[in-house]
Amino acid sequence: MTEHRKPQIVIIGGGFGGLNAAKALRDAPADVTLIDKRNFHLFQPLLYQVATGALSPANIAAPLRALVAGQANTRVVLGEVAGFAPAENRVILGDGSAIPYDSLIVAAGMRNSYFGNDQWEQYAPGLKTIEDATDIRGQLLTAFERAEQEPDPDRVRSLLTFVVVGGGPTGVELAGALSEIARYTLRGNFRRIDPAAARIILVEGLDRVLSSYTENLSAYARRTLESMGIEVRLGTFVQAVDAEGVTVKTGETLDRIEAQTVLWGAGVRASELGAALAAATSAETDRPGRVIVAPDTSIPGHPNIFVIGDLAHFKGSDGKPLPGVAQVAIQQGKFAAAVIKARLRGQPAPTRFVYRDLGNMATIGRAAAVADLHLFKLKGVIGWLAWLFIHLMQLVSFQNRMLVFLQWAWSYFTRNRAARLITAEYEPYRPQ
Amino acid sequence: MTEHRKPQIVIIGGGFGGLNAAKALRDAPADVTLIDKRNFHLFQPLLYQVATGALSPANIAAPLRALVAGQANTRVVLGEVAGFAPAENRVILGDGSAIPYDSLIVAAGMRNSYFGNDQWEQYAPGLKTIEDATDIRGQLLTAFERAEQEPDPDRVRSLLTFVVVGGGPTGVELAGALSEIARYTLRGNFRRIDPAAARIILVEGLDRVLSSYTENLSAYARRTLESMGIEVRLGTFVQAVDAEGVTVKTGETLDRIEAQTVLWGAGVRASELGAALAAATSAETDRPGRVIVAPDTSIPGHPNIFVIGDLAHFKGSDGKPLPGVAQVAIQQGKFAAAVIKARLRGQPAPTRFVYRDLGNMATIGRAAAVADLHLFKLKGVIGWLAWLFIHLMQLVSFQNRMLVFLQWAWSYFTRNRAARLITAEYEPYRPQ
Repeated sequence: MTEHRKPQIVIIGGGFGGLNAAKALRDAPADVTLIDKRNFHLFQPLLYQVATGALSPANIAAPLRALVAGQANTRVVLGEVAGFAPAENRVILGDGSAIPYDSLIVAAGMRNSYFGNDQWEQYAPGLKTIEDATDIRGQLLTAFERAEQEPDPDRVRSLLTFVVVGGGPTGVELAGALSEIARYTLRGNFRRIDPAAARIILVEGLDRVLSSYTENLSAYARRTLESMGIEVRLGTFVQAVDAEGVTVKTGETLDRIEAQTVLWGAGVRASELGAALAAATSAETDRPGRVIVAPDTSIPGHPNIFVIGDLAHFKGSDGKPLPGVAQVAIQQGKFAAAVIKARLRGQPAPTRFVYRDLGNMATIGRAAAVADLHLFKLKGVIGWLAWLFIHLMQLVSFQNRMLVFLQWAWSYFTRNRAARLITAEYEPYRPQ
Repeated sequence: MTEHRKPQIVIIGGGFGGLNAAKALRDAPADVTLIDKRNFHLFQPLLYQVATGALSPANIAAPLRALVAGQANTRVVLGEVAGFAPAENRVILGDGSAIPYDSLIVAAGMRNSYFGNDQWEQYAPGLKTIEDATDIRGQLLTAFERAEQEPDPDRVRSLLTFVVVGGGPTGVELAGALSEIARYTLRGNFRRIDPAAARIILVEGLDRVLSSYTENLSAYARRTLESMGIEVRLGTFVQAVDAEGVTVKTGETLDRIEAQTVLWGAGVRASELGAALAAATSAETDRPGRVIVAPDTSIPGHPNIFVIGDLAHFKGSDGKPLPGVAQVAIQQGKFAAAVIKARLRGQPAPTRFVYRDLGNMATIGRAAAVADLHLFKLKGVIGWLAWLFIHLMQLVSFQNRMLVFLQWAWSYFTRNRAARLITAEYEPYRPQ
């Protein structure tokens, strides 16, 4: 029997890396198993639009089974990976069962990091999952609702103060969307408070926002944020977060900000699976817990185990690790699939992954974005249109492209955000 | 001061009745307060489409504040009503505060009823809220996922057995959508199970489904359901529901159905507020807890308190209470507003609400629906097109009409249901 067994390829994670690996393996003479703990692929770059009521969760998600339904050699397993047994070439699932592999691709991604202050998480949620997004959406909208009911003006001020930690793309996009909501979407919706009086503060430790972009684009982003009424605090670090607000430090100066809403876009670290994999394979990890991989994205000493995407520490041509962006994951997923296919066919496999950097883009607000496409640096309306177009094209289903396009067009003309639902359990408010 | 105080109108509930009352009061010389525990109006007739992954929650909901933002005399209060003090003309909120009124409209709706067997609720969820819908969606999809992982064939059969209790519109629509999912949407999505092998059973105590329609339309609905592979069990009553299935009784015959998924569409009873209001005003209630109202929809002896929509027991011209459908609530909301406006203007107020019955419609499946429009009885494709058109037109925002139309058109051609997300916390499955 065993000589007839098809080679087994197991992929952990249905994000950009894992999904693209699976799709590239559709013609591989092997059985492909895609394992994820969720039943959908999530287009994370638009998660902040769910958190701010512009899009619905299903608009940026697509069922994994539907995405690979046409690939007869591929099955999806909904389950949680508990560990690795590389000596026996097996992945152990949470239910105790084992899935054997000949080649393994691990693409388990990142989660939020609070730099050792995990107690901050309850007060400053991060934005990684669909549930994070709908929870944050409920929290933002609830803050306005409570302010409307609150008689104490100090507390109203604290309810209408929103602190976003982290000046990377997520933080900038969240702060920009918050300003839109407060100044336009909610206009005329309340009778006691003026939503436009909301205070939005963006806190960044470095000396500029969007530090992975050129200084020129960073400066434009900062000016745009400030023109939208957002306070941008550079060179500022969070010292403490609690239920009533956040304490920040700029230089030697401590400042206390009373704020009922603090959002975390500051840091990420490797999925727990990174540590488990490293322990099982004696792989090295870097400080955020990413697994350090060889030039062909495999783990040194384990040529049949590949780590790709955000979970991988892959040294780029400049000696620095590649950034945790979708393009790196997509290209590495296709690369790892190509290595495995070449080996299966007895052909020489590529030995070195080369990242083709297509550029970066981030949106700031209505008709304002920055795009660093290397040859072109775009900003303003042109950058924004480029951002819209490229993000639309990257969505995985035609239906979602159509629905997102319509909602964007609608929001542009009406400034409405239709998905303003408080769906997490709402606690009736008792002013204190 | 007091002589300058504007008349206060308080509306409890932002469903069809309350929202239409509020909108009709836009030109009233009064302050209008709309109280709801949720921040959105929900288009309940399409809730089953959220539960079956065809639409997103935000597609059938619209923020209450946005709906009345343009009405300067109207404010929205997000809060839970705890009780009534009619002697002082006050509504008491959950936070202990009181809202005074000169006129009160109570439109608090219905909730699921298990006929005194509330312990069934945990095993047989009903479909009343957005959270019910997303929970049921997760439960349905999870059943297929677990079946795919389950080695024991008896358990696979139980996981792939779906019992829908109640042959009214909700039950018929749920059963029809389930059949579509099993036979078409999930086709090719699994490797071990065949989703089309799912068994769908519709249980109804009366001798026909859709008993509020003509016998001819009921018979058509039953034939259509059966042609879709659904077992329709008429004259059958639920005796017990537990974690492993349901026990039913047909005539004198008991039958045990092993089923991991049981959905409840069988009965409704009045919101808890009905009992509180009746106790405070000495109003009478009927068996499902509805408040029995006078011909002008007010509570006898309390001419300034109106009860409308599902919560009201209003005798129709045939002596039977009007049905709990959207049209009754909408028309009563407008009527109560007209009574209040006439009184405020010192004009003679209408004394008798007359229901204009526009007809009933229910969809069964793809291109199959029944519509009883009195002059016309429609079924099949024509009934289905009428159903689509009328439901689209009733959605409260143009954006939602557009989004729903697109998703319906897309689903029609592809048989896809894009919103197939398991978003409730997913428990990794351990086959037993």
